[in-house]
Amino acid sequence: MKIVIAPDSFKGSLSAKEAALAIERGIRKAAPDAETVLVPMADGGEGTVDSLIGATQGTTIQVPVRGPLLDEVTAEYGVLGDQKTCVIEMAAASGLILIREEQRNPWLATTYGTGQLIKHALDSGYRKFILALGGSATNDGGSGMLQALGLGLLDADGHPVPHGAQGLTQISRIDAADWDVRIAQSSFTIASDVVNPFIGPQGASYVFGPQKGATPEMVEELDKALLHWADLMEAHTGIAVHNLPGAGAAGGLGGAFQAFFPSEMRRGVEIVMETCNFYQHLQSASLVFTGEGRTDAQTASGKAPMGIAQAAQKKGVPVVVLSGSIGQGVEILLEHGITSIHSIVNGPMSLQEAMDRTAELLTQKAEHVMRTYLASLGQR
Amino acid sequence: MKIVIAPDSFKGSLSAKEAALAIERGIRKAAPDAETVLVPMADGGEGTVDSLIGATQGTTIQVPVRGPLLDEVTAEYGVLGDQKTCVIEMAAASGLILIREEQRNPWLATTYGTGQLIKHALDSGYRKFILALGGSATNDGGSGMLQALGLGLLDADGHPVPHGAQGLTQISRIDAADWDVRIAQSSFTIASDVVNPFIGPQGASYVFGPQKGATPEMVEELDKALLHWADLMEAHTGIAVHNLPGAGAAGGLGGAFQAFFPSEMRRGVEIVMETCNFYQHLQSASLVFTGEGRTDAQTASGKAPMGIAQAAQKKGVPVVVLSGSIGQGVEILLEHGITSIHSIVNGPMSLQEAMDRTAELLTQKAEHVMRTYLASLGQR
Repeated sequence: MKIVIAPDSFKGSLSAKEAALAIERGIRKAAPDAETVLVPMADGGEGTVDSLIGATQGTTIQVPVRGPLLDEVTAEYGVLGDQKTCVIEMAAASGLILIREEQRNPWLATTYGTGQLIKHALDSGYRKFILALGGSATNDGGSGMLQALGLGLLDADGHPVPHGAQGLTQISRIDAADWDVRIAQSSFTIASDVVNPFIGPQGASYVFGPQKGATPEMVEELDKALLHWADLMEAHTGIAVHNLPGAGAAGGLGGAFQAFFPSEMRRGVEIVMETCNFYQHLQSASLVFTGEGRTDAQTASGKAPMGIAQAAQKKGVPVVVLSGSIGQGVEILLEHGITSIHSIVNGPMSLQEAMDRTAELLTQKAEHVMRTYLASLGQR
Repeated sequence: MKIVIAPDSFKGSLSAKEAALAIERGIRKAAPDAETVLVPMADGGEGTVDSLIGATQGTTIQVPVRGPLLDEVTAEYGVLGDQKTCVIEMAAASGLILIREEQRNPWLATTYGTGQLIKHALDSGYRKFILALGGSATNDGGSGMLQALGLGLLDADGHPVPHGAQGLTQISRIDAADWDVRIAQSSFTIASDVVNPFIGPQGASYVFGPQKGATPEMVEELDKALLHWADLMEAHTGIAVHNLPGAGAAGGLGGAFQAFFPSEMRRGVEIVMETCNFYQHLQSASLVFTGEGRTDAQTASGKAPMGIAQAAQKKGVPVVVLSGSIGQGVEILLEHGITSIHSIVNGPMSLQEAMDRTAELLTQKAEHVMRTYLASLGQR
């Protein structure tokens, strides 16, 4: 009996790999002879590099770059086991995770460091990229990344504009003289579940600005700045990102990729599943265990368990979700290939206790779910 | 597919019947066509009358009696559907549940009301009894019950001794002139999981005295009082209950039954399972759901899920336990017929929230456990 173990991370408690190992321990208790295949998952957000590097036995590279507020940070990107494909999480250089909550300011935050990571990889000879867009601190429409790769964004006096969304309204001219020609020789797969457009009420500023520290007034200004920037990009590239689905991802970074890069945008979990050979692992599997910190209606929007379930459903393989906490609206998941959802919590307890004990609770729950699954097999 | 649903009560939240209905709702969501058989359980403690009356379509009778502290209370006993067998919970007349915590005093508390219930049933023509001993407030060695049924317990001056353990040391003579002769014409099945002897360090006073309000000094006095009383019972009946297993149940009430009544002591859950026709319901069942408020190492000592599991194991029927909270030491249960144990809690939450939401959480958990069980059937 082959069991595929493919959890996402339990944020704040366990990495996806640690979660997979904890689940495996439980399964072994219930079924010592089962063949287990560990495929730690990610959905294109935090943990994507870890997951893909782990699955392909790749390597990581540390690079000193500018953080979201231009401070020096050390960011990491991955090179897959094929030694050709780079995996970059934009959040590693330009993410909310790098700044304190009170520092959040989408007016200032820049994607410059993300551009530096790409440049470092290009300098190292890589031409194939997977870019994960989750967790950004920025609303600069990708302008910082483009600057780092040689694009001149000049004001009326011909001077480079300041970093961050604040610079966008001052741009009067795009100077592509130093634009990195290697971009055009490369391919970029953009991992993002965001379908929001660049501007407008469903755009980057209005929908994601607040969680990056924007006040209601700032949101309005941010949206105007992105509009100006979208007009300029359209004039320069011929591509109008204004209303393109996904252009609003990562504060408009998605739009910059669509306008300037040979790129394809795909759901993060699909890229991860493909790179991890999930579809092959699924062959002849009896059961899939997945998991995540919290399962609710949001899970249906492209989170790892949902992607896994959709793939498994096609093969007729049941999928069990082990979750820290089960919220409202999970019924919808049962219609899309998820067999059952179980909280790992084994009695009334605080969130802190549940997070401290995640590994142990995952093991216990995996054991008892596995025993339940096996019960009817014993009756054959 | 036949599913037997046999939970105990979730104390403080749901009766066993309410729990069974909540579980059934979940099973129906996962398997609308399943045949469900509801067998609300009890283990000889609180809920035993309810369970047996419900299973046999019996009736209940209210009787005004003396409570543990001689206050007037209305106690209920049951008559099974056979219209011959009475079910009496001693706690209904003499239980901790009838007094406030600060009133607990095993020196004073009496089983007199339990004797009154038996007398009422005898007066009504019944001769077959099931007595459930759980939850007593008393440590009177059953003396109060015997007094209510006509046994004279007299001091050196020939006066009746006071109620409660305090009276025991004053007894110098037992006068059986008015002892109810109908006792000898009856049969008493005593439901108790307690195997402690009447006296000594493992006896009623030392082991159960403290939870009934005894201080360490009082425990010593209580044990001496029971020793004196056991000596007197032995002199009168020829039966030495001092070290008899089970004689220490319900503050020595178990010993009084053993000495004065035609009685048989059995595990509560076995009596309940037998009376509820559980063994017949188990025939051709695919799966049993049981449940209780908390599952831990204590569950192995004769609680409802354990009794059910032992019966089901013989028939090869898997048993799933749905529990409010899972404690330490549950591994032992997996060796005795319990297939898996699942907390109904679906995320971090307080005990109060879990208790307020027990029905809803039971339904959700039953659905997802059932779906997990069915998953492998779908693969046949």
